[in-house]
Amino acid sequence: MITQFTYGTPVETFAVVQDIPVSGHEALRRFARKKGSPQIFSCMLGEDDVIYGLGETMRGINKRGFRYISFNYDDPNHRDDMPSMYGAHNFFVVDGEETFGAFFDTPAKVTFDMDSKGSGVLSVICASADLRLYIVEGDSAYGVVREFLGAIGQSFLPPLWAFGYGQSRWGYRTERDITRVASRYQALGIPLDYICMDIDYMDRYIDFTVNKRRFPDMAGYAARLREQGLHLVPIVDAGVKIEPGNPVYDEGAEKGYFCLNHEGTYYRAEVWPGMTHFPDFLREEVRHWFGDQYRFYTDRGLEGFWNDMNEPAIFSSEYRAKGTKPDLEHGDPDQPERHVADFKDFFHRLDDGREKSNYEVHNLFGAMMTRASGEGLDRLLDRRYLLFSRASYIGAHRYGGIWTGDNASTWEMLRQNVYHMPSLHMCGFLFSGADTGGFGGNCTRELLLRWLAVSVFTPLMRNHTALFTKNQECYRFRGPEDFKAVITLRYRLLPYLYSEFMKAALERDMLIRPLAFDFPEDGKARSIEDQLLVGESIMIAPVLEKGAKGRIVYLPERMTEVRYDGKSFTCMEVGAGERTVMVPLSQVVFYIRQGRLVPVGRAAANTAELDLMDVELLGTGTSYRQYVDDGYTKECSMDRCIMRTKEAQPR
Amino acid sequence: MITQFTYGTPVETFAVVQDIPVSGHEALRRFARKKGSPQIFSCMLGEDDVIYGLGETMRGINKRGFRYISFNYDDPNHRDDMPSMYGAHNFFVVDGEETFGAFFDTPAKVTFDMDSKGSGVLSVICASADLRLYIVEGDSAYGVVREFLGAIGQSFLPPLWAFGYGQSRWGYRTERDITRVASRYQALGIPLDYICMDIDYMDRYIDFTVNKRRFPDMAGYAARLREQGLHLVPIVDAGVKIEPGNPVYDEGAEKGYFCLNHEGTYYRAEVWPGMTHFPDFLREEVRHWFGDQYRFYTDRGLEGFWNDMNEPAIFSSEYRAKGTKPDLEHGDPDQPERHVADFKDFFHRLDDGREKSNYEVHNLFGAMMTRASGEGLDRLLDRRYLLFSRASYIGAHRYGGIWTGDNASTWEMLRQNVYHMPSLHMCGFLFSGADTGGFGGNCTRELLLRWLAVSVFTPLMRNHTALFTKNQECYRFRGPEDFKAVITLRYRLLPYLYSEFMKAALERDMLIRPLAFDFPEDGKARSIEDQLLVGESIMIAPVLEKGAKGRIVYLPERMTEVRYDGKSFTCMEVGAGERTVMVPLSQVVFYIRQGRLVPVGRAAANTAELDLMDVELLGTGTSYRQYVDDGYTKECSMDRCIMRTKEAQPR
Repeated sequence: MITQFTYGTPVETFAVVQDIPVSGHEALRRFARKKGSPQIFSCMLGEDDVIYGLGETMRGINKRGFRYISFNYDDPNHRDDMPSMYGAHNFFVVDGEETFGAFFDTPAKVTFDMDSKGSGVLSVICASADLRLYIVEGDSAYGVVREFLGAIGQSFLPPLWAFGYGQSRWGYRTERDITRVASRYQALGIPLDYICMDIDYMDRYIDFTVNKRRFPDMAGYAARLREQGLHLVPIVDAGVKIEPGNPVYDEGAEKGYFCLNHEGTYYRAEVWPGMTHFPDFLREEVRHWFGDQYRFYTDRGLEGFWNDMNEPAIFSSEYRAKGTKPDLEHGDPDQPERHVADFKDFFHRLDDGREKSNYEVHNLFGAMMTRASGEGLDRLLDRRYLLFSRASYIGAHRYGGIWTGDNASTWEMLRQNVYHMPSLHMCGFLFSGADTGGFGGNCTRELLLRWLAVSVFTPLMRNHTALFTKNQECYRFRGPEDFKAVITLRYRLLPYLYSEFMKAALERDMLIRPLAFDFPEDGKARSIEDQLLVGESIMIAPVLEKGAKGRIVYLPERMTEVRYDGKSFTCMEVGAGERTVMVPLSQVVFYIRQGRLVPVGRAAANTAELDLMDVELLGTGTSYRQYVDDGYTKECSMDRCIMRTKEAQPR
Repeated sequence: MITQFTYGTPVETFAVVQDIPVSGHEALRRFARKKGSPQIFSCMLGEDDVIYGLGETMRGINKRGFRYISFNYDDPNHRDDMPSMYGAHNFFVVDGEETFGAFFDTPAKVTFDMDSKGSGVLSVICASADLRLYIVEGDSAYGVVREFLGAIGQSFLPPLWAFGYGQSRWGYRTERDITRVASRYQALGIPLDYICMDIDYMDRYIDFTVNKRRFPDMAGYAARLREQGLHLVPIVDAGVKIEPGNPVYDEGAEKGYFCLNHEGTYYRAEVWPGMTHFPDFLREEVRHWFGDQYRFYTDRGLEGFWNDMNEPAIFSSEYRAKGTKPDLEHGDPDQPERHVADFKDFFHRLDDGREKSNYEVHNLFGAMMTRASGEGLDRLLDRRYLLFSRASYIGAHRYGGIWTGDNASTWEMLRQNVYHMPSLHMCGFLFSGADTGGFGGNCTRELLLRWLAVSVFTPLMRNHTALFTKNQECYRFRGPEDFKAVITLRYRLLPYLYSEFMKAALERDMLIRPLAFDFPEDGKARSIEDQLLVGESIMIAPVLEKGAKGRIVYLPERMTEVRYDGKSFTCMEVGAGERTVMVPLSQVVFYIRQGRLVPVGRAAANTAELDLMDVELLGTGTSYRQYVDDGYTKECSMDRCIMRTKEAQPR
C-alpha cells in the first residue's frame, strides 16, 4: 500500500503514474518532521536495520552508515565517498524492525543522512518545502520495491539488438575508424551489435549535425552497416550552440524555448560546442520541439541514441566567471555545493506558470531531456529504439535507460558496477549498465575480461573509453579468443536474459536483485553484496579482485555451478554453504538456482542472426516461461511483443 | 657483479656509494643503445620474463606491460595508470631467460616502457644524455637486488619509537586538539607512539615557526607528551616564504641559497605560505644551512620530522601564469608533462660549477632536501630520529624514510600499498609505508581495519587523513576494541619486526619481499602479488576486498597459520597449496614459514613500555637471532646498536 503526503505546491515530476490518494499530514507516522525550509524528515533505525535503494549512489548495496546527496552532477572521480552521481533516485527501503519504503518526490536537492554518525538516526533534508512524499508499505523489502515499481510505471523496453554487445570510444573520428572496429570484430568472430559515435561525429560538437568530411554520407553508411547486422548510436548533448543561422538555434531562440538568466535573457554556459543555451525541457512544448529534432538521425536510419551532459554539465558559466572559488578553510567539501552558483542564475518557466531556478528543479533536467527524446522517437519510429542517458530522475526509466557515467578503468569501479545494478533496478532503471572496461584511464586485459564477465549479465553491455586512453577494443589485447568466449556467452544467454528483462519490465519487477531479497531469512545471504541474482534462475558471483585466480562463493541453497569456456557449458551440482571456485580469465562461472532452468541459445555474430527459439535448457527445473521477440515489426508494441510465448521442454 | 657505464658528464646524484669501475661503452651487452638526446636503451624480453623494481610506481609487483615515468610529481589521484608518483626509483630487474638489473642514474626524466605494447621490447628513454648506467648481474632476481642494495649503502635507521603506531591528520590545529587525540587513545588502551602535526601548527604555513596562539609553549608541551611516552612529529615544507624580516628568508636571500629564474633573480612559486623561494638543495653549502634550521625543532625537544611538498609541488608559478594549459586535442595525457613549464624556468647552480634547470635535475630535489635534514639532524642530535619524506630518489634512503604520498580512502589504494612495499624495498627504502586509512576521502570502519592489518607489517604505521575528510582516529568508529586488537598485534610483533628491519638494513637486504624471491621455482608463487614475505619467518595474505569475510591463500610450503584475536595467538599447522581462510575484522591472520620462529612480546601502551627481551616464540623453528635496541643512548650508533644479541631459546 502506498500513501501520499503533499507539502506546499510541488513541481510536477511525472515520477508516479499510479493514482495515489493524498493523506493528511497528521497520518505520517514513519517520520518525525521539522517544518520549514529545508524540510527535515527523521526516523530512528533498529540496530540491525538495512537500507536499500537510492539507485545511482556510491557505497555498497546497504546504504546505511553514509550520507548521499541527490543533486545530479558530472564528476568522473567516482570515489566511494562521492555524495552525488549523475542521477537522483530518491527512493529507499528500510528493512528490519519495521519495513517500509519512502520516495521523496522533489526535483530540488535532497540530502539523505543514512545514519552517517552511527547514532541510529536516518534524516532526509529536502532543500525545497514543496514536495510529495510517498510511503510504501509491504511485508518485505522486496515486496515494498515491487509495490513501488507498480506505482512508477513500466520501464523502457529497448529492441533486442540493444541487448547485444556494443563498442564505443571517444575518438572514433571518421567512417573509416568505425569500419575498422567492425571489421576487426568480424574478422575475429567476436559478436557485435552496435558502435557508438561520441562527440567526434558532429560538426564542431553541435547537436543534430554531422561532420561531412568525416562522414560524407551518414545515411548510406548506416545502411551498409545495417546489412552487416550493425547499428550506429550517436551521442546527443543537452546544450544548443549559440549560432544564428543554425535552424535549431534559430527556432529555439525565436520561440523562447531556452532557459533564462536573472536578466530575462537566455542563460549562457560553455560546454563542448562553446557557448550554448539549454532547452527548457520542463515545458511540454519545448520537449515536443526537441524530440522532433531527432528526425535528423532517424531520417538517416539511426535507431539508437545516447543523451549526455544533461545534469547539465557546465564547463563555465557567466555566473561562475564572476568568481566563486571553493574556500579551502571553510568550504563544504561536497562537490555539488561548489558549483551551485551555475544553477542559481538559470531559470525555467514551468507549464503551471511558475518560474523556478534550475537549482530548485535541478534533478528533472536530464530526465525531461530523456522524455523529450523518447516521446519524439515514439512519434518518429514505428519500432522500438535504443535510448540511454547520463542524468536521470525516477520517471525517466519509462522513456530510456541510463549508464552510470564517466567511470574509470579501476577495480573499485568494477565493484561499484556490481553494487549499482540492484539499486538501480529498485528504482525502475532496468536498462542500465556501466562503461565496461572503464571510461577514464587505461584498462588492462585482466580488468577488461573480468568486467566483461560482469557486463554479460547487465542489460546494457557497452565497452566505452575516453580520448587519450589506451585502446580498449577487445582485439587490442592479446588472446582475443578469451574475449570472444566471454562475449559469446552473452549471446548464448540472451534467450534467458532478454526474456527475464521483459518479464521484469512487464510485471513491474526487478531483474537484478541482492541475495537478501530472495533469501530474507538467511543472515549470511543478507550480508553479501558481491553476488547478485539475475532473473528467476541465475546467481552470479563475479571475480572482482586484481590478480585473483578465483574467489569464495556463498550458496544459500544447493545450486548448479555452470562453467562456460567459450565452447561448451559444464554443469556441476554443488551444495549450500561456502565454496572456493577457481575462474580462469578465459571462462565465466555462474550458478543456477535449485529447481530453475536457463535456456541457452547458439552462438551468433549479432542479434539479427540469433534464434531465440532454438535453445537448450540448463539447470534442474521442469519448465521455463520464455518471452521471445518478434523482430521489431509494427506489431511489436510494448504489450504485444510478448504474444509468442514458448513453453520450454524439460531436459 | 656491477658494471658502470658513463655517458656525457653526469650530475652527481650520490645514489651509489660503492666504488664501481667504469667500463667502456662497447662492453654494454644488455641493451641496444640509440645515441643522442634523449638516449634510448632497449632490449628484448623473453616471453615469460618478469620485471621487478621501480620502487614507488603504480600497477602490480610485476612491472611488465606498462609505461612508467620517473618525474617526481604531486598528484593525489593514484589511479593504476598514473605514470609518475612522488619518487624516482630507476632500478629494475629483468627475471627470466636472462636475469639482470639496471639502474639508470640520472636526475632528469626517464621513461620506462616495460613492454607496454606487448611486443616484447623493453625501452628506457632518458631525457638527458648525461647519465650513469649500472648493470647488476646475479644468479637470481633476489641476488641481483642484494647486489644492488650493497652498492647504494645502508638504509636509514630510525629509533624504535618510530616503529610504533602514529596518528596524524591535516586539521589538528591546537595543543588541545592533539591532547584530545592522546587522551582518547590512552583512555581506550590503544597503543600510540607519536602524533604528527600537519601545516596547521605553523605560523601562516611558514617553516621553522610555530603559531603561538595555537601552541603557546611547544617545548613544554612536547616534554609533557614525552612523559606519557608520546612524540610530536612536525611537517616541514620545501619552500621558504618570501618575507623580509624572517631570519631564514633573510639569510637565504642574502647568501644566494635559493634557486634562480632565467633572469637570474630568485625563482618564485606559490605554495602553502604564499609566494616562496626554493632552497638550492643540490649545493652542499645550502644543505648545511637548511639542515641547521632544524635546530628550531630540536631545541623544542622534537625528534621526528616529515618533509613534504618537495617534488617540489607548485600551486602556481610566474612561468605557468603566462598560460600553458593542456591542449585537449593534442596534449600528452601524462600529468607531469602538463606542468613541466614550472620546472624549466627554475635553475640550480651545482657544486661542479654548472647551472642546470630543475627540469634537468628534477628528481634530486626532494632527495637532497632529505639529505640536508638528515645530515643536519645528525649534527643536532646524539640519537636516532624519525625522518620521512614525500619526494625521493635512490640515495635518499640512507637519510630518511618515505611515505607513499597523498593516497585516498579506497580499497584500490590499500591494494597498491601491498604492491608498493616490496618494490620500495628493492630500491633501499626500507622505512616506508602508506597513509593508513587513506589521506583523501572518507574512510570506513571496514577499510581502516583491513588497512591497519596490512600496516601492522610495514615499517611506517601512520594513520593520516586530509582536511575536510571524516575523522579517522580509531576511536571515531564503533567497536574500538577491534582497532585495539589490530594495533596491539603490531606492538606484540615489534620484537620480530624491529629485529628483521635491523637485519635487512645492516645486511643490505630487503625486509618485505614478493613470494617469487624466496620460492623462485614455484610457478604459482611467482604469479602471486597479494601475499608478501616479511622478514625471514612471516608470510602475510591480507584481506583486500570490500565486504570479504576471508580470502584464498596460497601456501608454497607447509606453514603455521597464526590467528590473533586481540588477546592470544592461536596456531595451526597447515599444508602447502590453496586454502580458504576466514578473517573477521577483529582478527589478523598471518603465516610462519616452516622451520622458522617469530618472537612475540607482551602488549604495551607505547614502545617506551615495551620490553623487547621478554618474548615467547611462535612457529616450528629452533632458533632465532634477535636484534634488540639499547634505548637510544649515545652508544647507539648505527653500528653499535646491535651489540646485544640475544639467542632465543627453542620452545
